Amino acid sequence: MRTTERIADFIVATGFEQIPREAVDFGRGAILDCLGVTLAGSQDPSGKIVTEYVKELGGNPEAGVIGGGFKTSAPQAALANGTMAHALDYDDVAISWVGHPTAALLPAVLALGERGKLSGREVLEGYIIGFEVGAKLGAGIGPGHYAWGWHATVTLGTMGAAAAAAKMLRLDAPQTGMALGIATSLAGGTRQNFGTMTKPFHAGSAARNGVVAALLAKRGFTADEAILENPLGFCKLFSGGGDFDIAKATQGLGDPFDIVTPGVSMKPYPCCRFTHRCVDAILYLIKEYRPRAEDVERVACKTAEFVPQVVIHSRPRSGLEGKFSMQYCMAIALLDGEVGLRQFSDEKVLDPKAQELLKRVEYVHPDGLTPLHPEVVTIKLKDGRELCHEVAIAKGDPGNPMGEEELAAKYRDCASFVLSPEDIQKSLDMVSHLEDLEDITELIDLLRL
Amino acid sequence: MRTTERIADFIVATGFEQIPREAVDFGRGAILDCLGVTLAGSQDPSGKIVTEYVKELGGNPEAGVIGGGFKTSAPQAALANGTMAHALDYDDVAISWVGHPTAALLPAVLALGERGKLSGREVLEGYIIGFEVGAKLGAGIGPGHYAWGWHATVTLGTMGAAAAAAKMLRLDAPQTGMALGIATSLAGGTRQNFGTMTKPFHAGSAARNGVVAALLAKRGFTADEAILENPLGFCKLFSGGGDFDIAKATQGLGDPFDIVTPGVSMKPYPCCRFTHRCVDAILYLIKEYRPRAEDVERVACKTAEFVPQVVIHSRPRSGLEGKFSMQYCMAIALLDGEVGLRQFSDEKVLDPKAQELLKRVEYVHPDGLTPLHPEVVTIKLKDGRELCHEVAIAKGDPGNPMGEEELAAKYRDCASFVLSPEDIQKSLDMVSHLEDLEDITELIDLLRL
Repeated sequence: MRTTERIADFIVATGFEQIPREAVDFGRGAILDCLGVTLAGSQDPSGKIVTEYVKELGGNPEAGVIGGGFKTSAPQAALANGTMAHALDYDDVAISWVGHPTAALLPAVLALGERGKLSGREVLEGYIIGFEVGAKLGAGIGPGHYAWGWHATVTLGTMGAAAAAAKMLRLDAPQTGMALGIATSLAGGTRQNFGTMTKPFHAGSAARNGVVAALLAKRGFTADEAILENPLGFCKLFSGGGDFDIAKATQGLGDPFDIVTPGVSMKPYPCCRFTHRCVDAILYLIKEYRPRAEDVERVACKTAEFVPQVVIHSRPRSGLEGKFSMQYCMAIALLDGEVGLRQFSDEKVLDPKAQELLKRVEYVHPDGLTPLHPEVVTIKLKDGRELCHEVAIAKGDPGNPMGEEELAAKYRDCASFVLSPEDIQKSLDMVSHLEDLEDITELIDLLRL
Repeated sequence: MRTTERIADFIVATGFEQIPREAVDFGRGAILDCLGVTLAGSQDPSGKIVTEYVKELGGNPEAGVIGGGFKTSAPQAALANGTMAHALDYDDVAISWVGHPTAALLPAVLALGERGKLSGREVLEGYIIGFEVGAKLGAGIGPGHYAWGWHATVTLGTMGAAAAAAKMLRLDAPQTGMALGIATSLAGGTRQNFGTMTKPFHAGSAARNGVVAALLAKRGFTADEAILENPLGFCKLFSGGGDFDIAKATQGLGDPFDIVTPGVSMKPYPCCRFTHRCVDAILYLIKEYRPRAEDVERVACKTAEFVPQVVIHSRPRSGLEGKFSMQYCMAIALLDGEVGLRQFSDEKVLDPKAQELLKRVEYVHPDGLTPLHPEVVTIKLKDGRELCHEVAIAKGDPGNPMGEEELAAKYRDCASFVLSPEDIQKSLDMVSHLEDLEDITELIDLLRL
């Protein structure tokens, strides 16, 4: 009962002091990760188009477009930065969201943070609260939501971003409820658009929606005051078949914070998450035994049967196909010893050496191997030796998190597409001490270029 | 099959020459009507807030905000003008849309028309094509859509506005398909927000979405190329229970044009459409017999039983409640001899004379009276006479359309809240000859103030 009111109260009552240290640490890591992939995403065609589009519309320069070299109004900055953040599908994932939380949340928080010259502490606060509200609504709305065709990154993302934006604007509880009500009428986005530029646009759209809803609520705009629980409200509307359990939307709100438990997964490699355990395994073998590509006779990858339904390209011809090719991921790991952004250009994928090597990858799915079993990679060398490694939990999952140095390395790689080495280091230092940053503008000015 | 492609082809292939004269005539009337209610709506709190909001964001001055005194970017102008157009719920309605077509379509068409300095002919063309696409999608998506909770004004409105915007930008067929694909991921909005400012915002949102989708598609942004028919596409996503008949989305596309058959309804009175037949009847009796309010002992209104489920306020205390009060509508008609915008201020409703008189209105629902039967109003005078009139088809419905002079009178009344008498006449003349207007900017400059 009174779900909307309870959630609005939670948003208003939860300050930085109420957020546990662990949540702040995870939040800081997720923010660094998202800023990196946004910088890299600014060079993707979808990121470039949305940046040019937003630039042409103009707007009061209140928030920076990352990698864009200009500022615009807060909603438009959120739209552009969110699209870039998700452009490479290299941004974080949360189970409770069945989607990508940070690409939807952070651009909203940053845009309003910059507009209000708020501190790093306030950015962390808004981000973590938005994460929490989106996650708990994900639990409340149930699995029918995603099954029906909704992309939770934009639907939950809109609501989470509205919660975060309401916090950044210091709305009171009734205004916060109104922001959630307005946001519900802005939410939407179908998984049918996966594989197109509209997919990353969903994250931008969510961030923009949250900012718009909160800015209007602050001006006294009205919406239904019990939008989460009312008969045609958020939970019913987006539940798919109508089978949802709204009580879960308030159970354990802030206790534990979802960003701590079950937590958020970072992607160490810019390819399909379902290639990651095998990539982990082969990188381990390469590091441990240093086999030369020309000495390899065969690579065998064992995964559960459903994996090739997602990782579908056995003979990829483009960077995008390479991201969904187990064969290519193994081949390029052997050739380059790493699986980063530079490994997924069209040129790289078409390189004859990679094309020759990927034919030697076997991708098998033994009966009875479920996603709960470890995945196994075996390298057979021409001299008869077999190098074998299995991985149970992918690097980046909460049970096997990326360490600070690994996150920093990913950030450096992503940022190097647009930032100078000095600015990479400077921005890295700022995010590492985000709580101490007095005005977030300082950071965005660096990243905006 | 290939629904999206067929609709995109229709949009591209249909020029002004392919549109029958009758459709142009209805379109011109609907445009005049919508411009009037937008001018009046600019003075409503929802219209004022959205105007201030959009003004604060700034933006390249490419399209005017009606009654706002400034220009902004096309998407933002569409957002503001659409919200104002629906602010008073005095704008037109179409059966096929189960909603308000023109408030969602026209602001998109005008914003892009002004941006491109297009002609009145092109505005009519874009508007009628958008109307047609939205209407036929309404047939395709089925009744489960509205029943589930979606507000068709924003969902169909987004798609119709995208079709109209694609036409205004002269997109080719593949780009037009992309615009529909992007639009699908922007569509959304719940009926739970009825009775709040977010309801009119839905019309603005639809207009804005259409403009955004077409502008992005023009820049090469991608979406699913068969978004209407694909498994998680528009029709399935928004069908409610999933029970839809996509074949209806292309049956009779442009033949007949939906704006001609079944046509669009205009509202002669700014109150609930379900009061309109009784208002027609009492205004007829007043005109015919000129009874004085003080001579009236009792007024009896006979309607079908479902009407009081919508017309719910027997003792209204505000202008908004008055719009949903049969008692007040009858009382104020007797007192003022008209039922226009000035009759729905809070002061008017609280006027002791109105409050006294409305208690003398009986509102009855005889067994067996269905919405297909005429509604009947009887005025019993103190001298014993009974004046009685019945109305089968409400004024403004396609079977009983408002004439040119009646539409002009409504426009004059609405526009008088913001325009000078000279500018009212000037703009009226321009819209009456919309096909001859070389640059729509000329008209909008007048209405922007």
